[in-house]
Amino acid sequence: MGTTGEALATVDAWWRAANYLSVGQIYLRGNALLGHPLEPGDIKPRLLGHWGTSPGLNLVWAHLNRVIAERGTPTLFVCGPGHGGPAVVANAWLDGTYSELYPEVSQDASGIHRLFRQFSTPGGIPSHAAPETPGSINEGGELGYSLMHAYGAALDNPGLVVACVIGDGEAETGPLAASWRANAFLSPERDGAVLPILHLNGFKIANPTILARIPEDELVQFIRGSGYEPILVTGGFDGEEPARVHERMAAAVDAAYDRIQEAWADARGGASGASAGTEGDRPPRRPMIVLRTPKGWTGPRIVDGVQVEGTFHSHQVPLAGVRENPEHLRMLDAWMRSYRPEELFGSDGRPVASLGGIRPHGGLRMSASPHANAGLGEPLALPPVDDDAVAVDRDDRGGRGEATRVFGDWLSRVIRGNPDTFRLFGPDEVLSNRLGGVFAVTERVWREELVPLDEHLAREGRVIEALSEHLMQGLLEGYLLSGRHGLLTSYEAFIHIVDSMFNQHAKWIEQAAGVDWRGDIASLNYLLSSHVWRQDHNGFTHQDPGFLNVVVNKSAEVVRVYLPPDANTLLVTMRHVFGTRNRVNVVVAGKQPQPQWLSLDEAREHCAAGVGVWEWAGTEGRAASGAPSIHPVDAAAPPDPGRSPDVVLACAGDVPTIETIAAARLLADRVPGLRVRVVNVVDLMRLQDPRHHPHGLSDEAYDRIFTADRPVVFAFHGYPSLIHQLTYRRHGHDELHVHGYAERGTTTTPFDMLLMNGLDRYRLALDALERTGLSDEDGGALAAEWQQAREDARAYAIEHGEDPEWITAFPRA
Amino acid sequence: MGTTGEALATVDAWWRAANYLSVGQIYLRGNALLGHPLEPGDIKPRLLGHWGTSPGLNLVWAHLNRVIAERGTPTLFVCGPGHGGPAVVANAWLDGTYSELYPEVSQDASGIHRLFRQFSTPGGIPSHAAPETPGSINEGGELGYSLMHAYGAALDNPGLVVACVIGDGEAETGPLAASWRANAFLSPERDGAVLPILHLNGFKIANPTILARIPEDELVQFIRGSGYEPILVTGGFDGEEPARVHERMAAAVDAAYDRIQEAWADARGGASGASAGTEGDRPPRRPMIVLRTPKGWTGPRIVDGVQVEGTFHSHQVPLAGVRENPEHLRMLDAWMRSYRPEELFGSDGRPVASLGGIRPHGGLRMSASPHANAGLGEPLALPPVDDDAVAVDRDDRGGRGEATRVFGDWLSRVIRGNPDTFRLFGPDEVLSNRLGGVFAVTERVWREELVPLDEHLAREGRVIEALSEHLMQGLLEGYLLSGRHGLLTSYEAFIHIVDSMFNQHAKWIEQAAGVDWRGDIASLNYLLSSHVWRQDHNGFTHQDPGFLNVVVNKSAEVVRVYLPPDANTLLVTMRHVFGTRNRVNVVVAGKQPQPQWLSLDEAREHCAAGVGVWEWAGTEGRAASGAPSIHPVDAAAPPDPGRSPDVVLACAGDVPTIETIAAARLLADRVPGLRVRVVNVVDLMRLQDPRHHPHGLSDEAYDRIFTADRPVVFAFHGYPSLIHQLTYRRHGHDELHVHGYAERGTTTTPFDMLLMNGLDRYRLALDALERTGLSDEDGGALAAEWQQAREDARAYAIEHGEDPEWITAFPRA
Repeated sequence: MGTTGEALATVDAWWRAANYLSVGQIYLRGNALLGHPLEPGDIKPRLLGHWGTSPGLNLVWAHLNRVIAERGTPTLFVCGPGHGGPAVVANAWLDGTYSELYPEVSQDASGIHRLFRQFSTPGGIPSHAAPETPGSINEGGELGYSLMHAYGAALDNPGLVVACVIGDGEAETGPLAASWRANAFLSPERDGAVLPILHLNGFKIANPTILARIPEDELVQFIRGSGYEPILVTGGFDGEEPARVHERMAAAVDAAYDRIQEAWADARGGASGASAGTEGDRPPRRPMIVLRTPKGWTGPRIVDGVQVEGTFHSHQVPLAGVRENPEHLRMLDAWMRSYRPEELFGSDGRPVASLGGIRPHGGLRMSASPHANAGLGEPLALPPVDDDAVAVDRDDRGGRGEATRVFGDWLSRVIRGNPDTFRLFGPDEVLSNRLGGVFAVTERVWREELVPLDEHLAREGRVIEALSEHLMQGLLEGYLLSGRHGLLTSYEAFIHIVDSMFNQHAKWIEQAAGVDWRGDIASLNYLLSSHVWRQDHNGFTHQDPGFLNVVVNKSAEVVRVYLPPDANTLLVTMRHVFGTRNRVNVVVAGKQPQPQWLSLDEAREHCAAGVGVWEWAGTEGRAASGAPSIHPVDAAAPPDPGRSPDVVLACAGDVPTIETIAAARLLADRVPGLRVRVVNVVDLMRLQDPRHHPHGLSDEAYDRIFTADRPVVFAFHGYPSLIHQLTYRRHGHDELHVHGYAERGTTTTPFDMLLMNGLDRYRLALDALERTGLSDEDGGALAAEWQQAREDARAYAIEHGEDPEWITAFPRA
Repeated sequence: MGTTGEALATVDAWWRAANYLSVGQIYLRGNALLGHPLEPGDIKPRLLGHWGTSPGLNLVWAHLNRVIAERGTPTLFVCGPGHGGPAVVANAWLDGTYSELYPEVSQDASGIHRLFRQFSTPGGIPSHAAPETPGSINEGGELGYSLMHAYGAALDNPGLVVACVIGDGEAETGPLAASWRANAFLSPERDGAVLPILHLNGFKIANPTILARIPEDELVQFIRGSGYEPILVTGGFDGEEPARVHERMAAAVDAAYDRIQEAWADARGGASGASAGTEGDRPPRRPMIVLRTPKGWTGPRIVDGVQVEGTFHSHQVPLAGVRENPEHLRMLDAWMRSYRPEELFGSDGRPVASLGGIRPHGGLRMSASPHANAGLGEPLALPPVDDDAVAVDRDDRGGRGEATRVFGDWLSRVIRGNPDTFRLFGPDEVLSNRLGGVFAVTERVWREELVPLDEHLAREGRVIEALSEHLMQGLLEGYLLSGRHGLLTSYEAFIHIVDSMFNQHAKWIEQAAGVDWRGDIASLNYLLSSHVWRQDHNGFTHQDPGFLNVVVNKSAEVVRVYLPPDANTLLVTMRHVFGTRNRVNVVVAGKQPQPQWLSLDEAREHCAAGVGVWEWAGTEGRAASGAPSIHPVDAAAPPDPGRSPDVVLACAGDVPTIETIAAARLLADRVPGLRVRVVNVVDLMRLQDPRHHPHGLSDEAYDRIFTADRPVVFAFHGYPSLIHQLTYRRHGHDELHVHGYAERGTTTTPFDMLLMNGLDRYRLALDALERTGLSDEDGGALAAEWQQAREDARAYAIEHGEDPEWITAFPRA
């Protein structure tokens, strides 16, 4: 299919217009249409922004517009290069979307003026694609995630092309390098296509890029070896006229769309459907465009004797000191006029009508794509959890159950009920985390070779696994940002790998909340298992509960942390988080057989409260006996002395809960008069000051639960400091004593982990006695018993290579 | 060069011996030499460990032994595959190193017994290569870092081959994918060679691997496209005899070493030196071995009707329930005897003498490599900082200086003085972070194409930059672990990208401290700049001080955090950290022109103390005037009323220090009777409880500085909660009020960042007044002034696109 000269002339005009608007955003505060020669007062006092990547992005956008307008193929634009803000905003303004969403930035002279002034200005817009940018699902701040976002958006969008521009700088990052192979999971039948456009402009901030400097035959092999068929477009060097480059780029874009549409037709049995599957049902090689143009193309070539165009000197602002330097001012004037703005904008500032020749309509405009802007489509259909709940004998709690396995069975029904809008992602840990129940209803999708022995692997499926936490996180982000739902399951320790991706996604959500035209998105949900306390044959490397610390630093409006202590609380928690929007929900739960505490009704009540007194676990459940307190603090006459405990044993996390309940049993046996309250925290944010987090308990409610003055011995899943951080303004925090993980490494058993970190039942009980001043009276016998139990258990562990079931068993009443 | 049949027979024997020892570690607690048929009591009660990767690792090790023994080429083995512990330990025992370092695990029957029992057992050794493993610099826990560690170790080791086995699982991770291109920085003249050995055993935990399932021609293109020449070895499938595989593998290893040695000779003008540079001075393609063998090769093929060998079922323990299942017990017995242990070990348990035919000697044994085990070679030669220090006028402090630029000049002298043992790593941010001074003495090394316009780029140089924080961190880790020194500079926000790598390195250091034969290593030093408070044209994505939170969770023995407030304190801090060992030092410092406070002598004194009262900045410096306190707390008669302040203004970080000093000036002007103390913290760990961190101030010292009862208004660089976390046990912490970063995003100026987060001078001063109960009296005027200043400054910023110099200027006395 040849492209007419007229269409290419319009592409060139669009490109020039976008370039003009990009330069204007960086430089101008007035005289936006160059009604007179530029004067110092027209120039922004401070020049900020990035020109270098802009002409390339504008070129791609213009050519995609042409092909979309011709073919009507919905296309989402993912802008990978950092600081591409001027370009994507310029194009959004040119296609009209920007003015529709921001009416004050109208498509006229006054709007251009505002467009220029707002860029990279206090109270204005950032210098990179961001939540405020129409059509964007990828932020150009921290680089590396464009291609995984693109693949995530393409999943379950069978008619969509996701055109992803990847800068040659970004291509050096690990996450991007891992993304090429996301093509192993994209189905030509049910998913859209990803069209990577590798833009080799040759330079990063101050260095050349690797992919631009390797020999072209090596580059071609790299691309083919990554599963793509490269379409090379090189141009603009040594003063080459853009017209020739437009011809080559138009042919490349047409060829890419042709191949995508052929592949769809083949796979879907369309016009040429007869050939479906003829390639041994391996998808055909996917097209990829490699666009090699000079960095800062069409900008000033030489400035003060230094080459700028085609070097890293064009990365930011090619002409500096324009207000002060008349020569630079003149060069800027000439540069902007080189785009012939008089052909592009009317005297009223409106883009000339002829640009409409390649302007797609309505939602086909890339800036207006509902895949980026609309947010969540349908809410998840969530089955009740009743059928999956485990039975708990209220008179004999502590029967065994595997929390994540129970959840996995329920999750299979979520998947069955939402066959096109929910996906499960895991770094080869779905089975290890005991979510195998999902394979009753679906498979892992795999588009590379299948062999007869493969298990739970198929050409289609709702589960994606590759050994890259980055890739799993990025695919899920792209899937969520384009309006769908999902879950990422990982080992707890290794989720730190995506700390920074979590950070950036949480920032995106917070920033997007202030953008009224953006739809809500489903929450990013993590289920972390194989956690710090249950590394039965892994060591120090696998012990790290610190992701929670990273999470709680982000905006309180966005983050939630849940530590369900058993299967029913996990079920209730997960059903809740799946219904939330614009959040990051982190759920930590063990996969081992462990005691079960709450019936489903109790779990619902407990999870709704987020924190609660477990009266059955402390002496309060036996209050009817009227056993008097033996604690001298009684003299202080608490408000309700019959109910006030001598000590509070608090816990958060499944293993700490087992030990806490066991400690309460020990105390009840050994020190019968001691009034012990057991508190369990499932929603960690309940601890935080209500002025800092919307889930924070009021001080009154906190005091009713934890007391304002009784010692609290808190057994925590993570680093103890996190509890202190969350509660430092609470009453009685001087009497808050936290036991948790203390970064001591060795090869050992879960039981010994508890001992090393002082989180075992005996230590908790002894600490409670010490805090109540009773350690001398009753603690001696208990301490001796502890020493003996510890030695016995250590000897058992060394002899048998495993725990004496301390960690999972508890003395049932 | 053909390999003799005898040598290959020895290779096979070594391989069988290592396989036998690997299986024994997983299964046996007794009967280690199979003196009788296996009985249930010989089997460990709990079977833990990973067989799947072991035979492949053993095969590689045996073949490398042969070539090292023949050629004498020092070779470091980097074990990438996860859970390769049984294999690397088996080989270390076979070559004698293990028994030398752990004499109780002797090279005899009793030693084999201990070898088996200790594996993956409480108090024993972990299931992956770890600090306890001789010859290891790469932990097999969190995957992805093997190849970057290998490249880091090869730098400046011109005679060394680093053989890096990469699992096909690990190859899916982002960090590994980014590592292939580390070849762009390796010099054939001055560095060693990295020989990647991609082991395609086809499966991860429960999934196939991508690289094992793509067509072989695609794989070859990927490897060539990544700059390597693949040497393919496939074997062991469908029952193929190992002998044929040995022949192919031996030829592959020989070919790889031949090519490496030819490349060295070419580059270094040796025997074939005439051809040096004939490839246009681009290095020849580097060899890479692709070894495709069945997962769990030589293990049980079918177990209970399920294929195990060659599938993911062999990942961990191929035969389960061996104690209980006689058939499995019989299969284990047959499996172990299939290695013909009677040919491999004498009746005394010693390896037979013939194995010595391929056993390298002394430090050539890979387990004994000094590059892995010896640690630090020479300490850094550190020039004095006197010549670089900025002059500070003690009577008029606050002159401008750029801290990182000053440091960069000094750093150039460190580089010059340590030309072979120090490297600077940066993700394209060395110039941006204003360390350009180093380019006075060195360049960035770049082995891809050079063009005439390139700046500070050369065939050799001490600076490495690629746009991957992962790769920079990993190269530095490898460089440090093999006994050298270095620095990583990054933007503060994006260092979160390597949170997990930092975690794992900190864990390695802590664990290694307990391994007596391991030498100390130089500290991992970070210089973080372009920090949260100075994002002059970047937005929310670039604002994140949370790396400090991640850091302080790691072992107190390992981590240090420094926040030098000006250039001289930065110089003194960096000179200090460069001299430390076995630490991770995190230094945060701004790059902008900012006020300078301390003379070099004062900086030395201040940094040595880590925290100090800056009397000149508060009213204490004017105590001679004898101005009486106006604060009612005077009535409480503090120990030294003439010296006791009414309020403490504390600060940590360069921008908070400017604002704090300005706040103190404001208070001195407006509320002249108020006694204000200014405290600056440069070593953050001084705040921590001395029971938790060796740098922690005693409570007495803390109280002398911060007082035990006066309000403290603390301006902090990072999240306020971190200060609360560090000080929650300190006296007076109810009166500790921290101002810091609060995760509120928008496009704005540094000045406005301060306003939004309440860290500006007016807010600090107003808070101080409020805490002293004076806000009503004197606060009104100040608050009004603050409102006006704020409005003026906002208007100025919007008009000019920049700050009215609030943030960098301060009211000089």
